[in-house]
Amino acid sequence: MMDYPLLLRTFLLRAAKYFPKKEVISVYPNNEIFRYTYADYFKRTCQLAHALASLGVRRGDHVASMALNTHRHLELYFGVPCMGAALHTTNFRLPLHHLVYIINHAEDKVLFVDEDLVFIIDAIKDQLPTIKHYVILSQSGKMPQTGLKPVVLYDELIAQFPESYDFPDNLSEWDPAMICYTSATTGDPKGVVYSHRGLVLHSYAVGCTLRVAENDCALHMVPMFHANAWGGPFGCVGIGCKQVLPGRETINMEAICKAIAEEKVTFTAGVPTIWLMLYNYLEGGGKHDFSSLKTIVSGGSACPRFLMEALNEKYGFPIMQAYGMTEASPLALAAMPKSYMTDWPKDKLYDVKSSAGVLALGLEMKIVNEKGQEVKADGRQWGEILLRGPWIADEYYKDPARSKPSFEGGWFHTGDVGTIDEEGYVSLIDRTKDLVKSGGEWISSVDLESLIMSHPAILEAAVIGIPHPKWVERPLCCVTLRPGQAVTEEELKVYLKDKVKATWWIPDHFVFLDQIPKTSVGKFSKKELREMVAGGKIRVPAE
Amino acid sequence: MMDYPLLLRTFLLRAAKYFPKKEVISVYPNNEIFRYTYADYFKRTCQLAHALASLGVRRGDHVASMALNTHRHLELYFGVPCMGAALHTTNFRLPLHHLVYIINHAEDKVLFVDEDLVFIIDAIKDQLPTIKHYVILSQSGKMPQTGLKPVVLYDELIAQFPESYDFPDNLSEWDPAMICYTSATTGDPKGVVYSHRGLVLHSYAVGCTLRVAENDCALHMVPMFHANAWGGPFGCVGIGCKQVLPGRETINMEAICKAIAEEKVTFTAGVPTIWLMLYNYLEGGGKHDFSSLKTIVSGGSACPRFLMEALNEKYGFPIMQAYGMTEASPLALAAMPKSYMTDWPKDKLYDVKSSAGVLALGLEMKIVNEKGQEVKADGRQWGEILLRGPWIADEYYKDPARSKPSFEGGWFHTGDVGTIDEEGYVSLIDRTKDLVKSGGEWISSVDLESLIMSHPAILEAAVIGIPHPKWVERPLCCVTLRPGQAVTEEELKVYLKDKVKATWWIPDHFVFLDQIPKTSVGKFSKKELREMVAGGKIRVPAE
Repeated sequence: MMDYPLLLRTFLLRAAKYFPKKEVISVYPNNEIFRYTYADYFKRTCQLAHALASLGVRRGDHVASMALNTHRHLELYFGVPCMGAALHTTNFRLPLHHLVYIINHAEDKVLFVDEDLVFIIDAIKDQLPTIKHYVILSQSGKMPQTGLKPVVLYDELIAQFPESYDFPDNLSEWDPAMICYTSATTGDPKGVVYSHRGLVLHSYAVGCTLRVAENDCALHMVPMFHANAWGGPFGCVGIGCKQVLPGRETINMEAICKAIAEEKVTFTAGVPTIWLMLYNYLEGGGKHDFSSLKTIVSGGSACPRFLMEALNEKYGFPIMQAYGMTEASPLALAAMPKSYMTDWPKDKLYDVKSSAGVLALGLEMKIVNEKGQEVKADGRQWGEILLRGPWIADEYYKDPARSKPSFEGGWFHTGDVGTIDEEGYVSLIDRTKDLVKSGGEWISSVDLESLIMSHPAILEAAVIGIPHPKWVERPLCCVTLRPGQAVTEEELKVYLKDKVKATWWIPDHFVFLDQIPKTSVGKFSKKELREMVAGGKIRVPAE
Repeated sequence: MMDYPLLLRTFLLRAAKYFPKKEVISVYPNNEIFRYTYADYFKRTCQLAHALASLGVRRGDHVASMALNTHRHLELYFGVPCMGAALHTTNFRLPLHHLVYIINHAEDKVLFVDEDLVFIIDAIKDQLPTIKHYVILSQSGKMPQTGLKPVVLYDELIAQFPESYDFPDNLSEWDPAMICYTSATTGDPKGVVYSHRGLVLHSYAVGCTLRVAENDCALHMVPMFHANAWGGPFGCVGIGCKQVLPGRETINMEAICKAIAEEKVTFTAGVPTIWLMLYNYLEGGGKHDFSSLKTIVSGGSACPRFLMEALNEKYGFPIMQAYGMTEASPLALAAMPKSYMTDWPKDKLYDVKSSAGVLALGLEMKIVNEKGQEVKADGRQWGEILLRGPWIADEYYKDPARSKPSFEGGWFHTGDVGTIDEEGYVSLIDRTKDLVKSGGEWISSVDLESLIMSHPAILEAAVIGIPHPKWVERPLCCVTLRPGQAVTEEELKVYLKDKVKATWWIPDHFVFLDQIPKTSVGKFSKKELREMVAGGKIRVPAE
């Protein structure tokens, strides 16, 4: 067979030549819709490639983006890697010192920034010595007030260049295409470099595993800085499917529901925090038409089962779970029910849909106990989930010390603990470091949270382990209430009584907060909760 | 990203661990059905791997099969490559001297042969010095009368070995996995060696392009010696979809229709000859229930449009066209209508479905004219179709002389002539060597055949060019009649008059035959027709 490299170029050229009339849509505030075709998309991506070369970007260079989900960001997704550089997507919700760290650590040469986010870069511009050019992604067409220099508007920059470009076919499939830093819970963020090969294979696997095809319309709810928007943009261009990019409107549920109805969205994905926002919008009588939807993926952290059931049963929102992480490009598992499960009783079917899922096509997984032995597929024995495969990272970028334990023995050690049943479905128990060890027995913080969040008065629940003189550790539960609701600690304990695996799972104490601190990608920040307990901000009654 | 090789092993392990209850079914004559699960399939494939090792098969060795589409053949499809050897699937319809040639040329060490096909090998056994062991794939469980030695029954051989096997994870993705020889129209057959990498990528592309997924049930009509049964078995195991293997019953339309109805087949593929047989069966009032079918692919040679329309419209058989060849693993193009075409008028939609299609995800194509320039995407300019990509061959096995012209410049020169329209759909005009050049103008034999076969009296039509003193070449049309039908040459000429592109396209002569000679894979043999004309077996009136 030909030694033909797996490059994103092949996907881009296919969209241009074979799907020139399919659409890409950006949604802006106040119902402003921008709409163009893959034929137009390709022309502007060619212009961008010329522009990058004109700014001195060469093969192997790194280019940063700080941008929302828009068609311009999608142009960067292909323009940068296909001309031979790598796109470093930065998370604008990171603390400023982390942003400074990652841009310097990646040695980015050019920074593309949304007009709405320029203020962030302005605040750190003096600490970014590697950046030689700033380019502003602007829908308004106006240069914002900024101290950045040299600076240019994206549309004006690329307009000077020809609408065709000879994308190199002699890159290596191992060349870096994208870079993403995880929002580390301790220490500096850790960088993951994605190769063309990895992204191409991940796209194929998403298509085959989640059944996304040309006749889908994908709405990208996941930020494009978050593990390549979970890979969606790459596969969608490759298979020529319609894409909707909601920009700032990702958290505006009215606009999202409007886009789903009007563009006939069939596929989307997002974190549970977003689905909770959607649920609250719908419960408040929010307008929606979900008739076009086929597959909705929840990932990033465990989606409470009550939320999944309520969205499905009450609103016809066909949500299921998938499991992955930055180091896995990100898809590792998906909870698609199998063909013979379609007529299963609902309860059993939700056991499947709310599991972490079965392995994506192309990876290898093993779950190993503390002795390093693979656990039995009985749904009960548990261990740490290890992954390997062509779209699994093999190191953290320029960080051998932290790479070593995570990639020991040629497997990525996820730090997640789970079981696998005889059908091959994995259930997550917890993060290794979030498990609560009480009296020598393990308690899953995730299971507890899911049970507590099923109480009608509770909006959010996060469980952490706190030191205990007798049991070594005991679970502490931090909750927030739904608007207008009230509940007592005693009522919650009674509520849990016949639901938990054992009565000693029930937390001794519940702390009522007005909000649970979140990480920059919207997950509960247990690190911050632990710090609040340690620092006395959350006070726990003495035993 | 990890340097994790793309191996068929990953597909096999996934089916065993994540889809253990999904089924594989073999259909035998007299309604005998064999049925087992991927869990059982995996155990027997492990036993097979041990057995191969016990017969002295090592990494890099070649093993031959001459077998029908059965579960045992499917075990060979994974057992042989996953233990490190390559499976050479032989076409039992080849002339004996070609069979001798390919088995010797491939230097096969072990030969697996169906009990029903042993007589073929018996006839050539003295000319196969490289074969050290014969293994008989037997459903009856009885050793047939044979002079082969040493010989053993497959089930007895593998039964001795353990049901687990440590399939090596350190093979190279470039290692040969399968070998297939094309039925050459001139000279000896040409070998194509498929790598693990190529087959894995081809499987992904088939899944994403033809939308085959876990919830499909695939019926393998294409012989497993014919370009890896068009790749179906590999992808199906990988995604864990149900498979039906019809063995000898492939040409028994009653049994095929029964299998489709009872197993709820959703996907199948085959050559037009088979679809013509199906059509005739249905026209004769044959029993059928096609309600489960979603996608049917016709390939191998052009499917007459009338046949496609009749099967779709009259019988609800959702057939569309794809285009490929042995050298392309085989999928290159597929005529899936795009999402916005679903409400197109039927006639326009059949233009799409009966085209050769758009490029599969992962390949590159160009159509070049006689000057080597790429033609315009206007649906009119035509040229030769060139392909490159990770599942396109880069040579014929041990045959540098014939490899050179076919793989010049890093592209595979298909020898097919076609156009491409602005939507990216390719239409085939002809084989370069089958085009008829009359008075300096080209006539497409394929177009003419399709028109002539739409006449109700005509069963088959094959057009070849014959020498002409004035026009250099003129088309000659050879036809066979439907049972009980009659038509004259004059009537056919009148019939074509307002259908052909120009009146000089109408053949001067029609030859009525009782059958059109076929190649070993069921295509019209124009080579043989030309020889019949040259040898006087077909007599053409002098001008």
